[in-house]
Amino acid sequence: MGIVNSFLSPGQFLFVFLSMIRVALMGTGNVAQHLFEAFLNHSQIEVVQVVGRNKKALEYFGKSTKTDSNAKFSEKADIYLIAVSDDAFPLMAYSIIGLNGLVVHTSGSSSLEVLPKTVRRGVFYPLQTFTANRTVDFTKIPICIEAENSSDINLLNTLASLLSNHVISVNSEQRSKLHLAAVFINNFTNHLYFIGQQISENAQIPFDTLFPLIQETANKLETLAPFDAQTGPARRGDAKTLKKQLRQLEKSDFKEIYTLLTRSIAKTYGQKL
Amino acid sequence: MGIVNSFLSPGQFLFVFLSMIRVALMGTGNVAQHLFEAFLNHSQIEVVQVVGRNKKALEYFGKSTKTDSNAKFSEKADIYLIAVSDDAFPLMAYSIIGLNGLVVHTSGSSSLEVLPKTVRRGVFYPLQTFTANRTVDFTKIPICIEAENSSDINLLNTLASLLSNHVISVNSEQRSKLHLAAVFINNFTNHLYFIGQQISENAQIPFDTLFPLIQETANKLETLAPFDAQTGPARRGDAKTLKKQLRQLEKSDFKEIYTLLTRSIAKTYGQKL
Repeated sequence: MGIVNSFLSPGQFLFVFLSMIRVALMGTGNVAQHLFEAFLNHSQIEVVQVVGRNKKALEYFGKSTKTDSNAKFSEKADIYLIAVSDDAFPLMAYSIIGLNGLVVHTSGSSSLEVLPKTVRRGVFYPLQTFTANRTVDFTKIPICIEAENSSDINLLNTLASLLSNHVISVNSEQRSKLHLAAVFINNFTNHLYFIGQQISENAQIPFDTLFPLIQETANKLETLAPFDAQTGPARRGDAKTLKKQLRQLEKSDFKEIYTLLTRSIAKTYGQKL
Repeated sequence: MGIVNSFLSPGQFLFVFLSMIRVALMGTGNVAQHLFEAFLNHSQIEVVQVVGRNKKALEYFGKSTKTDSNAKFSEKADIYLIAVSDDAFPLMAYSIIGLNGLVVHTSGSSSLEVLPKTVRRGVFYPLQTFTANRTVDFTKIPICIEAENSSDINLLNTLASLLSNHVISVNSEQRSKLHLAAVFINNFTNHLYFIGQQISENAQIPFDTLFPLIQETANKLETLAPFDAQTGPARRGDAKTLKKQLRQLEKSDFKEIYTLLTRSIAKTYGQKL
């Protein structure tokens, strides 16, 4: 029984949370699956139900808990976690309007306000990219929490801290900026990997030749800020190499990206090209 | 004594190489330092001399071998490694014209042809970004080798294989494409990290909150090609989120980069925006 109870003193409050948190989950995608797996690993978390619309996908969850394929919560929970895509938010509103518990979504880009006002609202955003069949170490994933009152923040903090060593409280504005930063360092970076793959394979060189460089580029950040880690012709203002490389690019899309990013780097370091 | 000798049978040839390779090094920068350290760790490699123009930087090498601050090789070597910046190539030509040994540069973007025709020429290009005071695991660094005849390829292969488990033979054209791919996945990616840092710190969120995502974005490539790993609003064709995020970006440079990369991702997945 982990429900927040206003009759409890702070000490008792902590004790109650440590006993058990009941979680119900909406959604069957990658985020829902990874959260579910992480929850199952904790004796202090009980997943009372998983609801969604994809019957096939629900089978996986049905091995360990109750499910509902009409996306309707029927089990009592302390926290209802809505792990569906942003597009599906309008559809799920009817399922949560009367819920008696804390209702949180897991989206980086959506405000807390997308949840109906009739419930206690919050956000539980794990800042990571989740892929089917890839296990991630949840203890290292930053979990960004938000709620409208301190007892709900405490409840979310307790749940998040069971999974991760890195829990931070951020408001909707901050979270949406963080999500935007994630677009640059994940979505856009991955697209650069894609371009790198096209170029190397075009030259009959296997893409994995570039893996150690990709790894080191990421690892370097542990000891060096990106500003200081920057190398290459754009930073040096090496016009000769830039011109030669631009000529080597065959696709006009890649040329455009090369030109723009080169210009942005050169500008950052006061180089004139 | 590892000099290639045409009187040897293939078996003897291998034996001679296994006895000792004498290397002389020109340059005192990051590449030279990291190679030097890697060479010192091998009983089969003897660094006979390091030459350059930076007296201060040469002191470090002088603790373990002979040095020359006029960038002049005086010791006999099997391989002379030119690890200077591309800009310095014209300056070093006079130092190597008469050398009796294999002369190789370590540059990704320069052709073998930049070396004078009077010597046996080759290239020894470790595909990695080297940073002062960061040790890298050389066994995992791909080393791209090139030479004008097979015995020189063998000699370079022997040297490279002592350091790395990943030695590949590539021609100048391929290497320059590989170097271009590296610009995308290292230089440009690092600039995206820089932008991500600006956005997150602008929202009072420490940049290291994004580190696990950066790591996983890179690690994912082990199991998933970049094309399949792509996620985010551009791939989904989610015009609403794209518009919202573009509005959130304050700097016009970041807006431009966001727009162009979004367009390129959308096009890759046949999304119309």
